[in-house]
Amino acid sequence: MDHLSLDKFEEAYETVQDVVLPTNLIQSDFFTQMTGNKVYFKPENLQLTGAYKIRGAYYKISTLSEEEKEKGLITASAGNHAQGVAYAAKKFGVPATIVMPTTTPLLKVNRTKALGAVVILHGQVYDEACEKAKELAKEHGYTFVHPFDDLDVATGQGSIAMEIVKELPTVDTILVPVGGGGLATGVSTLAKMLNPKIKVIGVEPAGASCLQESLKEGKVVTLDKVNTIADGTAVKTPGETIFPYLQENLDDVITIEDDELIVAFLDILENHKLLVENSGLLTVAALKHLPAENKKVVSILSGGNMDIITLSSVVQNGLIQRSRIFTVSVCLPDVPGQLNKVSKIIADAQGNVIKLEHNQFISVNRNSSVELIITMEAFGEDHKQSIIQALQKAGYDPEEKNPRALY
Amino acid sequence: MDHLSLDKFEEAYETVQDVVLPTNLIQSDFFTQMTGNKVYFKPENLQLTGAYKIRGAYYKISTLSEEEKEKGLITASAGNHAQGVAYAAKKFGVPATIVMPTTTPLLKVNRTKALGAVVILHGQVYDEACEKAKELAKEHGYTFVHPFDDLDVATGQGSIAMEIVKELPTVDTILVPVGGGGLATGVSTLAKMLNPKIKVIGVEPAGASCLQESLKEGKVVTLDKVNTIADGTAVKTPGETIFPYLQENLDDVITIEDDELIVAFLDILENHKLLVENSGLLTVAALKHLPAENKKVVSILSGGNMDIITLSSVVQNGLIQRSRIFTVSVCLPDVPGQLNKVSKIIADAQGNVIKLEHNQFISVNRNSSVELIITMEAFGEDHKQSIIQALQKAGYDPEEKNPRALY
Repeated sequence: MDHLSLDKFEEAYETVQDVVLPTNLIQSDFFTQMTGNKVYFKPENLQLTGAYKIRGAYYKISTLSEEEKEKGLITASAGNHAQGVAYAAKKFGVPATIVMPTTTPLLKVNRTKALGAVVILHGQVYDEACEKAKELAKEHGYTFVHPFDDLDVATGQGSIAMEIVKELPTVDTILVPVGGGGLATGVSTLAKMLNPKIKVIGVEPAGASCLQESLKEGKVVTLDKVNTIADGTAVKTPGETIFPYLQENLDDVITIEDDELIVAFLDILENHKLLVENSGLLTVAALKHLPAENKKVVSILSGGNMDIITLSSVVQNGLIQRSRIFTVSVCLPDVPGQLNKVSKIIADAQGNVIKLEHNQFISVNRNSSVELIITMEAFGEDHKQSIIQALQKAGYDPEEKNPRALY
Repeated sequence: MDHLSLDKFEEAYETVQDVVLPTNLIQSDFFTQMTGNKVYFKPENLQLTGAYKIRGAYYKISTLSEEEKEKGLITASAGNHAQGVAYAAKKFGVPATIVMPTTTPLLKVNRTKALGAVVILHGQVYDEACEKAKELAKEHGYTFVHPFDDLDVATGQGSIAMEIVKELPTVDTILVPVGGGGLATGVSTLAKMLNPKIKVIGVEPAGASCLQESLKEGKVVTLDKVNTIADGTAVKTPGETIFPYLQENLDDVITIEDDELIVAFLDILENHKLLVENSGLLTVAALKHLPAENKKVVSILSGGNMDIITLSSVVQNGLIQRSRIFTVSVCLPDVPGQLNKVSKIIADAQGNVIKLEHNQFISVNRNSSVELIITMEAFGEDHKQSIIQALQKAGYDPEEKNPRALY
């Protein structure tokens, strides 16, 4: 295949139906009210292996010759691509080898093995694992399945656009997350073929905006570094082969800060009871960047494989952002009864203390020589302010601190 | 209505279809492999208002006379019932008053108000709010909508059983959470009417097993106290009116400890990307209590309204249970270079330090007079043990501590 075609997209859509779960659109009253557009989610976090990756991998294998299938596949990944390839290979009865960095969490290694793949741990980072995979591919004649820079893989991912348009033919805008650009290539190219009126907007982490930079330059560029909590889309270089399709078919690229992802995480968890990983949240956060025009907007939730440690940290940060946890420092005179006095003010204001540090001798002034650092739970911003005001009214001078440092 | 009948169940099923979202069964490979039964989830956490409560409330209103509707509804609740009643009342254009304890989190108050209900804050606990609601009902002629001890409400909840049997006529067992018993009454009574071969098992928190105790005694009993993280099912007395139906139609009651809920929370979040509140997790935890018989088992996930502070605490506890976070105390001689030595051992074993306390003068023995309390992230139990062994091999005597105390 040397270019993307409607025939191939149709073939891929039919092919992947053998294996994918139906991920029907979820209409969101909450985000509709918040954004002034009619919002739908395409929940690929509920897909088999917890991400859309199985689509591209499965279609890719279906295009291989018998000989290629017998020799098997190889890829490198520490993320969703690993499990997508392993699952698709198992379905076809094709052997698969996945090279993972030695730093990959054990859980991900075990899940990939449980899907029947041979896992090789190699290198400290993805690039080293990838080099190894390409080396082994050459040595043993394995087919290397690139996570994004492969037209067959991108064609498979395009099946998402077919499903969206089938279910919601009046869709105006599709928001698609961008790492290397494979999903965005498939979705935008097919959407434009089906209906050129559909706008397709790519969404990148602000700390890994390799596609936006490349589009500006008019050629593929490599970022010096990436820095984002959206690990699945933390990519330095978009795909060379697919880049022309992205130039042609994407209407725009929006970039998202990490803080916006934390807000989006809580919004979708609380209102839709869905766990979405940080890269999948890009398109949720991007909803707020669109003008309110009562358009039908579909956000693709690309995956839900968030590590439990990451989950914990996102939730902690979310609590702080929502003023559900906050910290104040209060300076006290070094005389008996002061702790009791402050505790009473907080209790009367219904603040719930969860952490307390009491440091003496912070200054030689005996009237403010004790520092009390208090971390509390509150119901929200109003309640937090009322606790702070109660302390001020009693003559204290509470200073707000960053509670992140306390964890 | 003085008894439950198939006619009424059919009417209720038809009626609630106007308002409920389809919550199709989710087949679970993960829990099927884990338990040796074919497991399905009925995801009422994805229902409007995040819980099944809207069903009973909506059907209840549909049975009221025009005069009763004009006068309006009243109820008391700090939880899912409040939002269910508010939503249903809004749909019918019927005024609703909800009495909530003054301690109700602001978020829940605001959500109930946003659904158009009048919220009255009264009393410290549910019982006081409930008394007030009954008082106001008498005074103003409002219809009091009991959260569970009402045959119309229970009939509405029964629509879940109709949907399950329609979608999976070969179902063998239904697991249903029990608080006061309204959901269990509707589901078990209708399921037995449709097909007496279907087993229906109630699931209660071990710390609030009022139904199990009542069934043992052969009459409704009231527990002295309840103690469980499953707040939605923390009920002291099952419903009097519905009790005979529970005696008749439930095949068994299983009780679940809080620790089992934490395991269930992570299992379903990681494998199905679904947020389920603690009461809804009862039926997930109960899956492990059934014999492996390759039966078709449906667990009803009753709701997903978990407060973000509770979520944070459940996740923290889950990390500890999974050995993803652990704490050791190590005693060191009070000489320079010791901290450096210990840090190197941990770094070489790939432990990631997240918290450190260094306490001097804990004993007069200068060979073990400094205590280092280290909290670390690990990939799991094996990794944790390998870090502990590395410390032991270097001659230290690490003692494991409970990390909960550190948060």
